[in-house]
Amino acid sequence: MMNGTQYLESLKRRSPRIFYRGKRLANPYDHPALAPHVRTAAVTYDLAANGKHDDIMTATSALDGTKISRFTHLFWSVDDLIRKIAMLRLIGRETGTCFQRCVGVDGINAIWSVTYEIDRAKGTGYHKRFREFLLRLQREDLMSAGAMTDPKGDRSLPPWQQADPDLYVRIVERRSDGIVIRGSKTHITGAANSHEILVMPTLGLPPEGADYAVTCAVPIDAPGVTVVFGRQTNDERKEEEGRFDCGTPFGIVGGESTLIFEDVFVPDERVFMAGEGEFAGALVERFSAWHRANYGGCKGGNADVLLGATALLAEIHGTIKNAVVRDKLTEIVHLVETNYAGAVGSSALARQLPAGNWLVDPLLANTVKQNVTRFVYQVARLTHDIAGGILSTLPSDADFRSGEIGGLLEKYFAGKQGFSTGDKRKLIRYIEGMTSVATLVEALHGAGSPQAQRIVMLRQADLPEKARQAKKVIGIKDGDPKDK
Amino acid sequence: MMNGTQYLESLKRRSPRIFYRGKRLANPYDHPALAPHVRTAAVTYDLAANGKHDDIMTATSALDGTKISRFTHLFWSVDDLIRKIAMLRLIGRETGTCFQRCVGVDGINAIWSVTYEIDRAKGTGYHKRFREFLLRLQREDLMSAGAMTDPKGDRSLPPWQQADPDLYVRIVERRSDGIVIRGSKTHITGAANSHEILVMPTLGLPPEGADYAVTCAVPIDAPGVTVVFGRQTNDERKEEEGRFDCGTPFGIVGGESTLIFEDVFVPDERVFMAGEGEFAGALVERFSAWHRANYGGCKGGNADVLLGATALLAEIHGTIKNAVVRDKLTEIVHLVETNYAGAVGSSALARQLPAGNWLVDPLLANTVKQNVTRFVYQVARLTHDIAGGILSTLPSDADFRSGEIGGLLEKYFAGKQGFSTGDKRKLIRYIEGMTSVATLVEALHGAGSPQAQRIVMLRQADLPEKARQAKKVIGIKDGDPKDK
Amino acid sequence: MMNGTQYLESLKRRSPRIFYRGKRLANPYDHPALAPHVRTAAVTYDLAANGKHDDIMTATSALDGTKISRFTHLFWSVDDLIRKIAMLRLIGRETGTCFQRCVGVDGINAIWSVTYEIDRAKGTGYHKRFREFLLRLQREDLMSAGAMTDPKGDRSLPPWQQADPDLYVRIVERRSDGIVIRGSKTHITGAANSHEILVMPTLGLPPEGADYAVTCAVPIDAPGVTVVFGRQTNDERKEEEGRFDCGTPFGIVGGESTLIFEDVFVPDERVFMAGEGEFAGALVERFSAWHRANYGGCKGGNADVLLGATALLAEIHGTIKNAVVRDKLTEIVHLVETNYAGAVGSSALARQLPAGNWLVDPLLANTVKQNVTRFVYQVARLTHDIAGGILSTLPSDADFRSGEIGGLLEKYFAGKQGFSTGDKRKLIRYIEGMTSVATLVEALHGAGSPQAQRIVMLRQADLPEKARQAKKVIGIKDGDPKDK
Amino acid sequence: MMNGTQYLESLKRRSPRIFYRGKRLANPYDHPALAPHVRTAAVTYDLAANGKHDDIMTATSALDGTKISRFTHLFWSVDDLIRKIAMLRLIGRETGTCFQRCVGVDGINAIWSVTYEIDRAKGTGYHKRFREFLLRLQREDLMSAGAMTDPKGDRSLPPWQQADPDLYVRIVERRSDGIVIRGSKTHITGAANSHEILVMPTLGLPPEGADYAVTCAVPIDAPGVTVVFGRQTNDERKEEEGRFDCGTPFGIVGGESTLIFEDVFVPDERVFMAGEGEFAGALVERFSAWHRANYGGCKGGNADVLLGATALLAEIHGTIKNAVVRDKLTEIVHLVETNYAGAVGSSALARQLPAGNWLVDPLLANTVKQNVTRFVYQVARLTHDIAGGILSTLPSDADFRSGEIGGLLEKYFAGKQGFSTGDKRKLIRYIEGMTSVATLVEALHGAGSPQAQRIVMLRQADLPEKARQAKKVIGIKDGDPKDK
Repeated sequence: MMNGTQYLESLKRRSPRIFYRGKRLANPYDHPALAPHVRTAAVTYDLAANGKHDDIMTATSALDGTKISRFTHLFWSVDDLIRKIAMLRLIGRETGTCFQRCVGVDGINAIWSVTYEIDRAKGTGYHKRFREFLLRLQREDLMSAGAMTDPKGDRSLPPWQQADPDLYVRIVERRSDGIVIRGSKTHITGAANSHEILVMPTLGLPPEGADYAVTCAVPIDAPGVTVVFGRQTNDERKEEEGRFDCGTPFGIVGGESTLIFEDVFVPDERVFMAGEGEFAGALVERFSAWHRANYGGCKGGNADVLLGATALLAEIHGTIKNAVVRDKLTEIVHLVETNYAGAVGSSALARQLPAGNWLVDPLLANTVKQNVTRFVYQVARLTHDIAGGILSTLPSDADFRSGEIGGLLEKYFAGKQGFSTGDKRKLIRYIEGMTSVATLVEALHGAGSPQAQRIVMLRQADLPEKARQAKKVIGIKDGDPKDK
Repeated sequence: MMNGTQYLESLKRRSPRIFYRGKRLANPYDHPALAPHVRTAAVTYDLAANGKHDDIMTATSALDGTKISRFTHLFWSVDDLIRKIAMLRLIGRETGTCFQRCVGVDGINAIWSVTYEIDRAKGTGYHKRFREFLLRLQREDLMSAGAMTDPKGDRSLPPWQQADPDLYVRIVERRSDGIVIRGSKTHITGAANSHEILVMPTLGLPPEGADYAVTCAVPIDAPGVTVVFGRQTNDERKEEEGRFDCGTPFGIVGGESTLIFEDVFVPDERVFMAGEGEFAGALVERFSAWHRANYGGCKGGNADVLLGATALLAEIHGTIKNAVVRDKLTEIVHLVETNYAGAVGSSALARQLPAGNWLVDPLLANTVKQNVTRFVYQVARLTHDIAGGILSTLPSDADFRSGEIGGLLEKYFAGKQGFSTGDKRKLIRYIEGMTSVATLVEALHGAGSPQAQRIVMLRQADLPEKARQAKKVIGIKDGDPKDK
Repeated sequence: MMNGTQYLESLKRRSPRIFYRGKRLANPYDHPALAPHVRTAAVTYDLAANGKHDDIMTATSALDGTKISRFTHLFWSVDDLIRKIAMLRLIGRETGTCFQRCVGVDGINAIWSVTYEIDRAKGTGYHKRFREFLLRLQREDLMSAGAMTDPKGDRSLPPWQQADPDLYVRIVERRSDGIVIRGSKTHITGAANSHEILVMPTLGLPPEGADYAVTCAVPIDAPGVTVVFGRQTNDERKEEEGRFDCGTPFGIVGGESTLIFEDVFVPDERVFMAGEGEFAGALVERFSAWHRANYGGCKGGNADVLLGATALLAEIHGTIKNAVVRDKLTEIVHLVETNYAGAVGSSALARQLPAGNWLVDPLLANTVKQNVTRFVYQVARLTHDIAGGILSTLPSDADFRSGEIGGLLEKYFAGKQGFSTGDKRKLIRYIEGMTSVATLVEALHGAGSPQAQRIVMLRQADLPEKARQAKKVIGIKDGDPKDK
Repeated sequence: MMNGTQYLESLKRRSPRIFYRGKRLANPYDHPALAPHVRTAAVTYDLAANGKHDDIMTATSALDGTKISRFTHLFWSVDDLIRKIAMLRLIGRETGTCFQRCVGVDGINAIWSVTYEIDRAKGTGYHKRFREFLLRLQREDLMSAGAMTDPKGDRSLPPWQQADPDLYVRIVERRSDGIVIRGSKTHITGAANSHEILVMPTLGLPPEGADYAVTCAVPIDAPGVTVVFGRQTNDERKEEEGRFDCGTPFGIVGGESTLIFEDVFVPDERVFMAGEGEFAGALVERFSAWHRANYGGCKGGNADVLLGATALLAEIHGTIKNAVVRDKLTEIVHLVETNYAGAVGSSALARQLPAGNWLVDPLLANTVKQNVTRFVYQVARLTHDIAGGILSTLPSDADFRSGEIGGLLEKYFAGKQGFSTGDKRKLIRYIEGMTSVATLVEALHGAGSPQAQRIVMLRQADLPEKARQAKKVIGIKDGDPKDK
């Protein structure tokens, strides 16, 4: 397993084509915009490598018996799933922001299970290929990004009816030794600082959409791959001297990438689905079930820091003993732990898939994500309420460092004695960053929009069965005559 | 183990002093007001005895290795706790209303663990006594009611400063062979049709409140015990011919009892705490942690029936295909499963107590109950929305049976073809019953009021620790000088 | 104008056919089930007649210059509309429950304006007829009930496609001197104790539904009219000795009626629309706009009493000084006054109709009702929270009056000194009554379901116009070329 | 009256000391950070000067009969108050963001009324002085900023017990011809581009706080005044070429200033309170009542644009016909119009103050602001939901303009045919800007925090009076004997 430093070195051995704000980045991993992403991902390596959290951060590979990072591990039991949630909360607490690794681990589990089933049904050899790929991922301790969401164009039309057929990633050529793909994947967390991209379809596909049913692994620096690192809320602050207004020494992580595949050749050994659209729905649904449960872990860890920051700020403001302020802090606790409980609960009721790994309860996992899409806005409001108007009016760090007015600002922004204005400002900037549009929208749309969860929930709830039970309990007979 | 019929027979061998609407009931278990409670409790016996749900409904006693009802079982593992939640959801679905048994099983677990710790600290012999009592409970398969809440009088004053010292149950005399207690316990679910009452203190007690620190078991028909069966929403309907307007053939269960102890003698072998107030807080907190998690199970089961009934009614109204109606049904699913996931999650993170049984995670368990206190009102509104105004205007069953106007009502209350107006009316009456004040308030205040949960949550959340983590992540050093 | 006593006498001169719980009522206005409705309606007469609130309760008729009750008055100005809201809040505070008069006054305003427009468009004589009818209503100070909602059967089908064509009221025969109507109207507030029924269509109607486009006035005791007084939550308590458990000396008013018209002849002078379906939509929309705004008044008045009762109970419990309890009371205030502000605001922005009377702003009026459909559930929860579990477990009044156990109950249900248990019980019963299913559902579905309001709101909001404004502000030109 | 160009010229004749990001701005009004504020304020001048909205934008001065901007007008009637709300909504729709003028008009009304009452009580001459000042404001059509909020330091301590006595603005010297003030005011909207600052106390003051009871007018460029223009969300984007990512051609307005007064001399004719702390509470309460009602107007206008933008984006995404999407748009309408209705309602129930101007109903006005503090978060979530994940991942404008990748981005970010990606991006950037932390927090804390409103609401609600009414309705007699 690599540590954080080795991870960074391994990235630097690659030369991906990454654009940000109109320019290709020469040394992307050192660029201030990307550096926070690299640093928080590095924390995931350090925590696995330092031996202090082995029960949570590492596992024993079922493929070859070696000790591996849990981020390259298959979920072999309920216990594995619960430990994953614990791992996400731990790292969320240590980084205070998104660390980008969870998409990959859910992706490999989804591909593991679905390739098994395709092979069983169709006699293909995807699962063996994927096993080899996964072994390398484990041995080299690589970071993989799951790339599922296509740009989608006009959402009232299916992929093959779009004005431009490339608006969903598709196979444009099948060769004897591989396939050629074209298209784009968007909102891809952690892509720019991953080693591998796991391309997966974004919806179930009927026969006429077979070319869109493609799962494969593409190195981040494969020829034809372009990464556009999106604009983030307040991203310019990361390029300022001292980076004081960035929220944490790491910076708040919010940059997600658009990937563009310009006729990228993928050799056979990296292709795990190529046309079997009838399995695409299962892939999406399993991936998203695991992934939606995660949000009860990582967002809980982030919220632990946010809650602590808000409580500290209330202490600095002199309001921490107010019963109504305490009630608001309690509400944050309630919301956060509701989601954590749900994530654990959906893991505890997991069931084993044919390929051997375990799937969280999909119905419960979807409730977790649905709650997250609401709770981040509620938590934002509660932290803003306690933090005060200063959250939107605080002068910049440059003003505080100004020889002309810095002293005046120090004087007037003083809080309760015993705290510096620097402490106060750091807390404010952290809260600002963790409740920005980028952070809120990631929590809302990451792992699928609210409506995506509701569709799964209604289907999983099995209304007809519940109606039958209601008839039984209430005493309604099927086929009761009208004249009863 | 008894079945439902044997349970009823066992009750009839007792002669408790039960009052309802001003009169002592001669045959309480046959009285229409109490009968639904007896019948739903009987279902819990039948489901355990019929062999179809043995993995959920029964367990093997750790005391003597016999097969017992899970309602008399100690929680020896995470698995036991998760099975309990599954059991509660199952029975909730089978009865469609409250079945009253969960207080007892949580009570015996709380007393088991606390008596162990009192003995260890003080050299008393409570645990052994309780073990004997529990063995009898298991062998005779008795139903026990947990009695914790006192009337409390003026809540701004502690028990010993009330105008009347009896407003909390207390020991008024200590004899060589037992104690004499006086006072009242109120809101006691299932008390009237239980065999045993488990009296427990309702709050932690300092030395001056030692007389109020009393835990003991009292037979329901012990001399000096009076049961007043409370008035319920629409309880008169249970005394009508045909009972059509009662919601289910069982009737909605909502009657809870006030117990009055007029100097009741409790022999030593039934006394499990008598003055050790420093242990009363732990007893309350453990009992309520287990009990609060339950609500994700039983209310989920009830809501399954309510959801099915509402969906059926939408079908009868011809509105089931409406996207907004379906979205409302989805919201009910979301709320219900959030609570179920939380109940399972709090069980999965249980920890073992010194006495060997396992306690759910208190922080998570409290979020479950807190969510229930909100979700029942939201679910009520959603079901009312879909059910329509007829929920408050439907004529009585007698009108429908009237020779003069019954035909007219049949004509005008017709719904979609294929359903009788009788079906429609039953569904309406069930929804009405399950969203009545009695039902809502039970969900709100049962197992402790919303504020009780918030107090535990804030304490469990450990804000100082979260503030330390925030400092670490954000880069704030302890003791930063003011002039930083 | 009549006072309350004269109103009762005027009712007794009529002999309507009213059924309740399977029997025709011989003296309906004295029957305990109906008496609260009569008594609260009588309060509206007394308040108008006693001269203490003339500016609010009375007005000068524009038809003949006489002083009349505001409940028979047309809205001639913004001021009239604001005074109506003030009147509703006043009476809501005086009765503490529904007083049933507002449907009538909104009905006469809707018919006044629409008959004017039909006549203008079609040369009919409806408006003059209605003026005569209204003059009589004003002179005799009659109470009228608006009857709009039909049973509707299968809601996915229009009236003329129902399995039974009578599921919406329709004209079954046109005679030289009048029409014959058949069908039913349901959820009709105050119908049983009104003098006149104003029958109105419930939806806009195309030509094929012309027979369903019928507006007319029918005396409550017209031949062929049957009134079925619906079952209410806890209605049996009204028949108990002392009626202590009824909530108020009046009793909570919640009984609404189903009206059945068995080929009722309506003479021409009482017919105000007979086939002009293209005007039915306007009638419904105007009626419901006025009516939806009302809920900010009457429910506010009721909530004033509910808030006072809850605060008193908190005082008795000894919790009134708790900051969190006070915050909950504040939330009730906030919700209530939001609705009152909205009702006044929608009145202040009224516009004049062609017939001369003024219509509240429909968009704003619909927001008021929509908020009410939410706030009653929130207020119910808050009052239940503060009131405590006793709301669902309080023994009956008969128990308190029992010689055997009354003394014990008095002892144990004592609250803070200075209050009797009787006071406490009355407050509990009032809160129970005002948050019952009947009361909640009336607030939810009265004047139209939540979805009915949303349909109006979306249409009134004029999204295309807002999109144009967005383009202008944001700098998007219409017809921007794709290649911009 | 000035038009927008004249307003800008008038500003440029002044030389205030304004800092931003560590540097004093040489030409502040042309600086990209400040320019949007100047431009939106200029719109308020243009709309008043162009003659198209005279009934809303202008008024006739009661002081000298001339035609003036409504922003310098006293509220002489209910009609004036309702027109103010209409004006705020109009400008909110025209600018799509904050236009900063409302604080000034509420400030002059508050000072007008309170100076009148101080003079009447104490024989001072403040009112006459203020009348002269106001006449000049009207004649010269000046923009004034209300400056009320002090930095407050440790909020558990009053001003005179702070570690630094300057943490609230105070009089440090009284001279024969004026006073000298020291301290700071923070979160001051529009201060940097106003002509005059209206300094007002932030809380009621007892005798020991008399030096903090100071109301006066200070020119923005008075010696000793420093303005620090706060950091805003994404403010660096305003300094980019083309400013495409700024949300509107104006840019979203969110920069508020901290003002520092370093021993500023204020001559007597500009001093309107100097020690009369017993009147400070009334000043704060009136100012905030007017100001809190405003939010139903201006935020409504902003939300009109936001709603239009969101609907357009749904059209581009191809989701506008989805019933659930439409329901979400309807919810935005509902929330916005609830607030508008409340603002109008609180105006319609205004009452006249002794000085002749009219005060909105304080209870209703506070509900408006309280609702705004909730609704902006709900609206943010709804717009984010509809807009999609692209809100947090959209590449920068520079990427779209890049010769290397611009074409690829145009290809992949295409939406429904007929719309350019530029249109799509503008809508996204506008939504991003209007739901940023700066915008949300302004809506939350502007005109007082949520808790400030709750304190007023509870006091205004008069619980004792409501308790008396409850007793009357429910039938509880004062002094009921315990044994009743």
